[in-house]
This record gives sequence, structure tokens and C-alpha cells, in this order.
Amino acid sequence: MAGQSKDLEDLFLETLKDIYYAERKILVALPKMAKAANSNELKAAFEKHVEETKGQVERLQQVFKLLQQRPKGKTCPAILGLVEEGEEVMEEFEDSDALDAGLLSGAQAVEHYEISRYGTLIAWARNLGMKEAVPLLEQTLKEEKNTDATLTKLAEAAINKKAA
Amino acid sequence: MAGQSKDLEDLFLETLKDIYYAERKILVALPKMAKAANSNELKAAFEKHVEETKGQVERLQQVFKLLQQRPKGKTCPAILGLVEEGEEVMEEFEDSDALDAGLLSGAQAVEHYEISRYGTLIAWARNLGMKEAVPLLEQTLKEEKNTDATLTKLAEAAINKKAA
Repeated sequence: MAGQSKDLEDLFLETLKDIYYAERKILVALPKMAKAANSNELKAAFEKHVEETKGQVERLQQVFKLLQQRPKGKTCPAILGLVEEGEEVMEEFEDSDALDAGLLSGAQAVEHYEISRYGTLIAWARNLGMKEAVPLLEQTLKEEKNTDATLTKLAEAAINKKAA
Repeated sequence: MAGQSKDLEDLFLETLKDIYYAERKILVALPKMAKAANSNELKAAFEKHVEETKGQVERLQQVFKLLQQRPKGKTCPAILGLVEEGEEVMEEFEDSDALDAGLLSGAQAVEHYEISRYGTLIAWARNLGMKEAVPLLEQTLKEEKNTDATLTKLAEAAINKKAA
């Protein structure tokens, strides 16, 4: 039964469309999160990541081109759920001291989704011999991991400040 | 405007309800994934994680108890989205050699969501002085990270096998 029609290249392309859709949703969500944040450091981190995300979208377009495909998104239910959770926190904790902690944790959940997806895409790109795609995806993975680390530092700094 | 009503303890409780709901959804999804998988190693990894997840649910119930709260889930749109994506892959790649790669990557996306959530809960539990909750949450985080590492190894082994 196995191996009849779809193969790993199809799966790669589907997942590429998934993360392309996700990155563009993130480009819409992040400025709202930056606007909502109370801490200037957190606002700045979100704003920096908006700029990075634009570059990541361009890199994905390059990967589509390497596959001789037109860049196209595919509805990604995971990012819709993650963004919905972020919006719930923004609403429920709007006037709370805990708002920034909630925004930050929501952003880290998004980063982890991306870290998982890019890790997978890199492994598959290697397997498929897509040598030019690997460094493009690796550069984005590095940025996502750095963003996650920055957010962890901000969370710890806020906690230390509060505890002081 | 800040600090009127809800605080970090409320946010902790909301997030606890979120992951409690998510773990129980995972308990339903994992056996389906184990059944669908072609590789015996992947089936075994999913089945092992079903047993671990049962222990994780119990640990969450203990954390609710420490907060003098009845264990209660709260709809978690992120896990619903992640599970939906997994189901899409199972359907679209049902008869494909790439099915296991897709199942594996979906499971890693779920693990990363959990890693992010438990990391956040541990930081907040420390901040809130919930000393008994921290080791419970840390034990689960360790299991999630181990599961993610096991899945990465399985993916790499499959790739090496295929490339050989």
C-alpha cells in the first residue's frame, strides 16, 4: 500500500505552505502584541521580531522558487489556535500586571511551534538533497531560537525585578 | 490601570487549565497516531508516551490540589489546531512512505507546545513561591524534552536508513 502517490517532497511542500501561512499570520499578530505590551523592552523585542519575520517570509519565498513553485500558503490550524490563545490572554488580562507575562508566554509558544517546524523542514531538505534550501531554513531557525532566548531573558529579568 | 483584578496566580491557573485540557486531548490523539504509524519503533515511542502522559495528567491534578482547586480543563485552541494538523497529514499521506515522517513531525510540534507551556509554568511557579509545584512540573518538562529527543533520533535513523 505504501509509496503509491505522495512522497517526502510533497510533505515538504505542504509543510512549507503551512509555515508560510503561519509566518504571515504572525506578521499581523506581532504588532498588536507590541502595542498591548506594557514593558518597553517587550515592545522592542516584538518590534524587532516583526522585521525578522519579514526576512523569514522572503527566505520561504526563495525556497518555493528553488522548488519551482509559486509561494502559496495553506491554512495552518496550529497557528490560528496559538494566535487565538494570545488574543484571549490580551482580552482577559488587559488591565492586569500579568499581561506582559501572558503576552510573553504566548509569543514563546509561537516560537516553539516555528522551531519545531523549521527543524523538521531542515531535516527533510537534507534528506531530499535540497542543498540550497538548508542554509536559508537554518538562518531562520537560528533567529527563532534567539528570539525565544531573548524572551526567556526578559521573563527572568522581570521576575527578578519583581522579587527584588 | 494596571493591577486592578487579575494577577500572575490567575494567569498560572488559566495556563494550568489550558495544558490540562491539552494533555487529555493528547491522550486521545496518541493511540490513533500509534495505530497509523508504519514503523514499529515509532508505534512504540507513541505508546510509551501515552503511559507518560497519564502520569503527567496526574501530576497536573496534584498541582491543582496544591492551589486548592478542582482539576478543570479550559479549551486550548492551540492543541486543537495541532491535533487537526496531525489528522490532516494522516488523511493526506495515508498510503504514502512519508506518513511516518509526517506523524513524527506533528508529534514534535505538540511536544514543543508542551515544552513551552511547562517552561512558562515552572518560571511562574517559582515566582509565586509554589515550591511543591516546581518539581512536579519539572519532571513533566524533562519527559517532554526526552520524548522530543527520541523522536529526533527516530527521524534521523529513518533518514540514514533511507539514504543508505
